[in-house]
Amino acid sequence: MPKVKREARSRRTIIVGGVAGGASCAARLRRLDEEAEIIMVERGPYISFANCGLPYHIGGVIDDRDSLLVQTPESFRQRFSVEVRVLTEVVAIDAEAQTVTLRDLENDSETDLSYDSLVLSPGASPFLPPIEGVALPGVHVLRTIPDMDRIIEACEDSTPGHVTVVGGGFIGLEVAENMVHRGIDVTVVEMGPQLMPNLDFEMAASITDACVRHGVEVWTNTQLTAIKQAGDDLQIQTRDGKERSTDLVMMAVGVRPTTELARGAGLVLSPRGYITVDATLRTSDPNIFAIGDAIEVVHRVSATSGPMPLAGPANRQGRLVADIIAGRERTYCGPLGTSIIQVFDITAACTGISEAAARRMDIDHQVVWINAPSHASYYPGAETITLKAIFDPAGGKILGAQGFGKDGVDKRIDVLATAIAAGMTVAQLEELDLAYAPPFSSAKDPVNHLGSVASGVLESDHPACSWRVTEEEEDLLFVDVRTASEFAAGTIDGAVNIPLEELRARLDELPRDTQLVAFCQKGLRGYLAARILLQRGFEVRNLLGGYRLWQLVTDCQK
Amino acid sequence: MPKVKREARSRRTIIVGGVAGGASCAARLRRLDEEAEIIMVERGPYISFANCGLPYHIGGVIDDRDSLLVQTPESFRQRFSVEVRVLTEVVAIDAEAQTVTLRDLENDSETDLSYDSLVLSPGASPFLPPIEGVALPGVHVLRTIPDMDRIIEACEDSTPGHVTVVGGGFIGLEVAENMVHRGIDVTVVEMGPQLMPNLDFEMAASITDACVRHGVEVWTNTQLTAIKQAGDDLQIQTRDGKERSTDLVMMAVGVRPTTELARGAGLVLSPRGYITVDATLRTSDPNIFAIGDAIEVVHRVSATSGPMPLAGPANRQGRLVADIIAGRERTYCGPLGTSIIQVFDITAACTGISEAAARRMDIDHQVVWINAPSHASYYPGAETITLKAIFDPAGGKILGAQGFGKDGVDKRIDVLATAIAAGMTVAQLEELDLAYAPPFSSAKDPVNHLGSVASGVLESDHPACSWRVTEEEEDLLFVDVRTASEFAAGTIDGAVNIPLEELRARLDELPRDTQLVAFCQKGLRGYLAARILLQRGFEVRNLLGGYRLWQLVTDCQK
Repeated sequence: MPKVKREARSRRTIIVGGVAGGASCAARLRRLDEEAEIIMVERGPYISFANCGLPYHIGGVIDDRDSLLVQTPESFRQRFSVEVRVLTEVVAIDAEAQTVTLRDLENDSETDLSYDSLVLSPGASPFLPPIEGVALPGVHVLRTIPDMDRIIEACEDSTPGHVTVVGGGFIGLEVAENMVHRGIDVTVVEMGPQLMPNLDFEMAASITDACVRHGVEVWTNTQLTAIKQAGDDLQIQTRDGKERSTDLVMMAVGVRPTTELARGAGLVLSPRGYITVDATLRTSDPNIFAIGDAIEVVHRVSATSGPMPLAGPANRQGRLVADIIAGRERTYCGPLGTSIIQVFDITAACTGISEAAARRMDIDHQVVWINAPSHASYYPGAETITLKAIFDPAGGKILGAQGFGKDGVDKRIDVLATAIAAGMTVAQLEELDLAYAPPFSSAKDPVNHLGSVASGVLESDHPACSWRVTEEEEDLLFVDVRTASEFAAGTIDGAVNIPLEELRARLDELPRDTQLVAFCQKGLRGYLAARILLQRGFEVRNLLGGYRLWQLVTDCQK
Repeated sequence: MPKVKREARSRRTIIVGGVAGGASCAARLRRLDEEAEIIMVERGPYISFANCGLPYHIGGVIDDRDSLLVQTPESFRQRFSVEVRVLTEVVAIDAEAQTVTLRDLENDSETDLSYDSLVLSPGASPFLPPIEGVALPGVHVLRTIPDMDRIIEACEDSTPGHVTVVGGGFIGLEVAENMVHRGIDVTVVEMGPQLMPNLDFEMAASITDACVRHGVEVWTNTQLTAIKQAGDDLQIQTRDGKERSTDLVMMAVGVRPTTELARGAGLVLSPRGYITVDATLRTSDPNIFAIGDAIEVVHRVSATSGPMPLAGPANRQGRLVADIIAGRERTYCGPLGTSIIQVFDITAACTGISEAAARRMDIDHQVVWINAPSHASYYPGAETITLKAIFDPAGGKILGAQGFGKDGVDKRIDVLATAIAAGMTVAQLEELDLAYAPPFSSAKDPVNHLGSVASGVLESDHPACSWRVTEEEEDLLFVDVRTASEFAAGTIDGAVNIPLEELRARLDELPRDTQLVAFCQKGLRGYLAARILLQRGFEVRNLLGGYRLWQLVTDCQK
């Protein structure tokens, strides 16, 4: 029989916030220590609810509202023997005395409680920009179950014909899709140049494309300046002078960390206003820990500090703090920022750092794209996946990866996230031994393929350029190596067509004093063409991602 | 512009075998060297066909036969400028003279050709056990397009009512499923104690269960001894005296490497009869390489040598040999043996070494199982995945992993294969930052969960036992901590029922002088119960994989 380990007996731990990280922390601490006194305090009426599921209940994808309540205060008490106080706010911390002041929001009474360890998991709240009309009753946010209930009520009371979603991030787009599921017209208003700013521009174009194909109006580079009541309707106005009548406005422009309590207690905050923690997730007070959306963490790849408001990291942080409170030595290794979104038929995901972030942080990097089938192309249901790798040109260490497609994107990004966590190089991706049968992959998985292309670029075997080549360079000759019928259906302006299979016989048609860009639909034939031309002494590069990616970006920029 | 790299000019390379590794090698070599002379010789009529797709065309899942012909000799010639000789056999190698003798199978003429490098990719052929009736016209194998055509013809000429599949591995089971798709009754006859011998027994039970649920008769521990013609029908007989009338017999009991040519050339073969190669995939003759199903390779985890007849490794080996022939320094890092099968609604997969292999090779190991939802349980379509980790008890390095379920198994096995390739520990699995949104995963992915449970067992936090406990131990008290209604629907013989939520209040009902085994449906509540009981001084273990896995195995053993 395994022996019982002696745990340092934690005495009283108070956890502020009962969702995500807070609840994980409480449950883990109880598992480690049956005798610890654990008090979990939650301002709202619910704990441990499925916040990521809220948009889907609005659209009816998740039918049963109760299924969103993963744990109730009562079930949590029963299972974990944790004292749960909902509708209770911690209004003050006396860090020196190690006490907190609790306010019961139902009867407005206050009590002081002492703690040995305090865990702050206060989360964040939706940011409301200071514009006219933001407080009108038809303007909504979505963070909590009551928020969701209000939106559904508004949709049911007087079925809106049109909803304006302000903000093109996770919540905004998930709400947009679910409003379409309800049969409502949607306009997405995004201040920045693209949807999903955690993705690079060309990868986010897949999301814009999915929205537009499903009837969503997408306004990027557009700043909302006012919301006005106009009879029963609302009227939105933008800085560039657009106006639109709408029935409901969903504000999803980002969140702000909930830090009043930490600030009041004198804890150190970051310049951006997040709670500062060390590698043990301790705040500037050693008895006070902080986790989740309100803290800044050190990114595993970039080693820079920043917020990472995601459920996975919050969960792991809660668990780790419980371990430390129970007397174990642990340090937090930092997140990779792996995230994923499904918008209509497209899934887009990323991990590690983006190309834009690498550029912003001046991290030396190289980039490749591939298109590959989600599984054997001869087996039904194969869909093209586009993958991107961002890697270190000195040695090939993978810094980040992104992908989009209709199927199998989550798998490839998870494999790449694992490879990044392990410090792998692109050459090692090539050698990964992944599970192949026709319904699942190809003998050469898209991740192997991505590794091959990146290695080829690294080793100068694969002369390559990006979809930006048509914006950034001049005096190039584009050589479309697809078939005549593919060429006829649309190509890059000025391109000449020499199908790959005819290339060796038609080399004399190509100039030797001009830089060539070979391209095909997805990138493979262009690569083969570039290899042929390179060895015959031409100056040539292959257009990575092919005409397919180039066209997606070009359409999105229109 | 990238510079042209100087490649060591390969002169003439002859590749024996034009499927999988052979075709990969030819294509890669051409990309590296436009001037190399490359001759690919294939005994059959087709090159580069989708051998993994053959069973699915029999069942009509893959409708279009032509889609299986990934490349034709003509398309391969055009694209890669490779001389392709089909219906041509290499009948002899003179290693000293560096020549091969080619026989044209159509006109039976022979020619000698010299080579600078020779690549053997001869593959393997189906093994036919020396039993009575194995040569009868109703007995089939499936390796090539003509094999497939014959089986389809047999199914169409006189629709069989019953097919006997001999052998419960990949090909056998894929054919069995596809025969069911054609409306044909199927019996699978397997000599060993389980289907899918690369999986551990309890994981393979999921495949048996899927077969039985879909009407397939499964005879394990059954050796076929004779096939007799009985009028239009066949009659099969087994060692244990079973007889059965059947219309068609599919022999899928394994393959034998095609090594006559290598043997004739005096190349060194392994004791098992495979071609021996070094880390550069060179045979005992430095100008002759060998790849694919006919060679033995060194497993990346166990470091033992053995065959690995899988498409992914063959593909990478072909590519690597081309690199070496083109003058690059490369070494093969060995396969992990990652493989996957879909049988009806169940997918089962594995990577690294199995528990059975670890035991056989006397590798110190520990094992855990978990059940977890394929994605957020509140989002539609979530299915339970069962995962298993085999890891080193000293330090937690992952040695192998297996999984089964209806959705998302391929993703988790690929993540685990990547983790194994990187030499990760189970503690690192816990920290992986994987892509989470409700349609794809949970905030704690099943792989994180697997890591947590394995770490818990490693750190003695999680006292655990396996599904074998009821076979191997006596005088245990089983404590079913599920609800009363779950208990009533079926439990382990002799178990007492104390729902988890009541456990703390009912501790005095449990004996302190008896070893307890707590269990629930999937393993989580059992773990929580074990933590409570352990800390209250009981001797207790949690049944890993829960009643669910225990019941699956027990049903399969009936």
